[in-house]
Amino acid sequence: MNIQDNVIMMDHGSGGLTSDRLIRDRILPVLGNPLLDKLGDGAVFDVAGSRLAFTTDGYVVDPIFFPGGSIGDLAVFGTVNDLSMCGAKPLYLSCALIMEEGFPLSDLDRILSDMAGAAKRAGVAIVTGDTKVVAKGAADKIFITTSGIGLVNGTPFDGRSIVPGDKIIVSGTLADHGCAILAARENLVISDGLVSDTAPLNHLTAAMFESGAAVKLLRDPTRGGLATILNEIAENTQLGVRVHEAAVPVRNEVTAFCGILGIDPLYVANEGKLVAVVSADDAEKLVKTMRNHDLGRDAAVIGEVTPAGLAPVTLVTRIGGERIIPMLTGEQLPRIC
Amino acid sequence: MNIQDNVIMMDHGSGGLTSDRLIRDRILPVLGNPLLDKLGDGAVFDVAGSRLAFTTDGYVVDPIFFPGGSIGDLAVFGTVNDLSMCGAKPLYLSCALIMEEGFPLSDLDRILSDMAGAAKRAGVAIVTGDTKVVAKGAADKIFITTSGIGLVNGTPFDGRSIVPGDKIIVSGTLADHGCAILAARENLVISDGLVSDTAPLNHLTAAMFESGAAVKLLRDPTRGGLATILNEIAENTQLGVRVHEAAVPVRNEVTAFCGILGIDPLYVANEGKLVAVVSADDAEKLVKTMRNHDLGRDAAVIGEVTPAGLAPVTLVTRIGGERIIPMLTGEQLPRIC
Repeated sequence: MNIQDNVIMMDHGSGGLTSDRLIRDRILPVLGNPLLDKLGDGAVFDVAGSRLAFTTDGYVVDPIFFPGGSIGDLAVFGTVNDLSMCGAKPLYLSCALIMEEGFPLSDLDRILSDMAGAAKRAGVAIVTGDTKVVAKGAADKIFITTSGIGLVNGTPFDGRSIVPGDKIIVSGTLADHGCAILAARENLVISDGLVSDTAPLNHLTAAMFESGAAVKLLRDPTRGGLATILNEIAENTQLGVRVHEAAVPVRNEVTAFCGILGIDPLYVANEGKLVAVVSADDAEKLVKTMRNHDLGRDAAVIGEVTPAGLAPVTLVTRIGGERIIPMLTGEQLPRIC
Repeated sequence: MNIQDNVIMMDHGSGGLTSDRLIRDRILPVLGNPLLDKLGDGAVFDVAGSRLAFTTDGYVVDPIFFPGGSIGDLAVFGTVNDLSMCGAKPLYLSCALIMEEGFPLSDLDRILSDMAGAAKRAGVAIVTGDTKVVAKGAADKIFITTSGIGLVNGTPFDGRSIVPGDKIIVSGTLADHGCAILAARENLVISDGLVSDTAPLNHLTAAMFESGAAVKLLRDPTRGGLATILNEIAENTQLGVRVHEAAVPVRNEVTAFCGILGIDPLYVANEGKLVAVVSADDAEKLVKTMRNHDLGRDAAVIGEVTPAGLAPVTLVTRIGGERIIPMLTGEQLPRIC
């Protein structure tokens, strides 16, 4: 028997196919319930007549400081964004720190300051927390787990109303976060232009809701990138997704960086971008609304939902060919968030 | 300048004086807000007319399996108990796993099974989660952070109504969890009687509320033990607390184990016990109610609130002397939860 069948491997944390199998084959059969089984960015439920969203994420990013941010604002924005993708207004966050003995207090101060700034920018409060310390070598510097509660007005997006013809929109350029982390980790000083996009999306999503556009699903393409989200949409709807390469916004520095390293930007993590599925009639209106917002100025329609085809997700290339975009296999960039 | 002033030390995670200073001197000045500043077992706030409690804890216990439980049920019960101490009925939990590459999947299965059993016993659902993997050596086996949401009926216990004469009650024997962990970690096979008390207290607290007794404060004496909770009560009320050694329930095996190792059971962690402050008139009634419950059968009045004296917390010994019970300094037992 292969050792890989018996132990946790790096790609169990990739957000891709192996993560998905770990969750579906080992976790859901034991812990599953109707809310957990949905595997959304968070759970949505009613408490005493209020519809709430609840989410959690552990942050283990390496390095803890990188161009554009740190583990501190990542931990706040990531949870704010997961709540926003549930159609919720983020309200309250919790924060659990696990630190290694010997971790510099000056680094902790910087991270706390980043968390405070991020909470202020997103308009949320960190209201409860926990601090644990483990011996030197038992953890790598600092891990932060944030959870969040948000208030949902109206029906949560569950994607059930998605039909062929619906448009796929992204809110801006892809792969910025993952490339910034990789360049910082490996000290690859290729360009000053590799900066994380970590940002709170709740103000953008609020503007999108207010526009009245028929948004059917929101997801943030973090671990596993756009490709993973599109495959999940195809799988959950039992429909197809077709994306047009020429329409996908990627910054030139990122395209060059990915080209050199042989990485596909469609699989690279983002931390301040969203994917929306919207009815075709409302797509242009929604893009216009998003472009009026600082975090949506590069928003674009990148593709559409199709009837189920030979492959769940396909990409129409710049030269007019079509290739399959499969689920991520293996681990492309560990500890990206 | 001393290195200890510049880096995280083990006793920053002790739950005692150094933890308290880290939180008050470094975290609250940056992240503080009226809810976080209360430093309770969780935060209590209103959302759309509902009063909710919200809490989080990271679990780094070593070993991950021990007599009486595992990191899995500890992570569920700990968060259930924190919500219960807020006067809330626990409803929904989140779970974020951080695992080390190479962690055995059989151990993960066992932990997930324990979490499922614990959630069932407590009557809560784990509704959202996250899974991260770090390279071998970047974390010690598995860390679990759970957060929880509960519904508060009535006014949360903030201890403001505590007056001299109020009674201090504990729900059962002290120091069982910490001693079980220490014995398991060091392979000290001294007695079969060292078993963790990890258990969900929400059913017990529900019975306590239903009794109508004037409960003024509930706390669970985890890290730092009973001594830490009593010092926090004294500090927050600016009153004194006097405890009678002969009244404090400690199992014989635990007394013997602590005696051999020179540990004071008042500072050792519990994971299925609570401390209640109640008006003197209701104390006996409340103890009787608690003793009717499986998890409260050793409940006892152990002391009383006094006017502020020379020391915040004192212990009347079996031979009639009185000694000061200070805040925990240093780290007695790391990674106890």
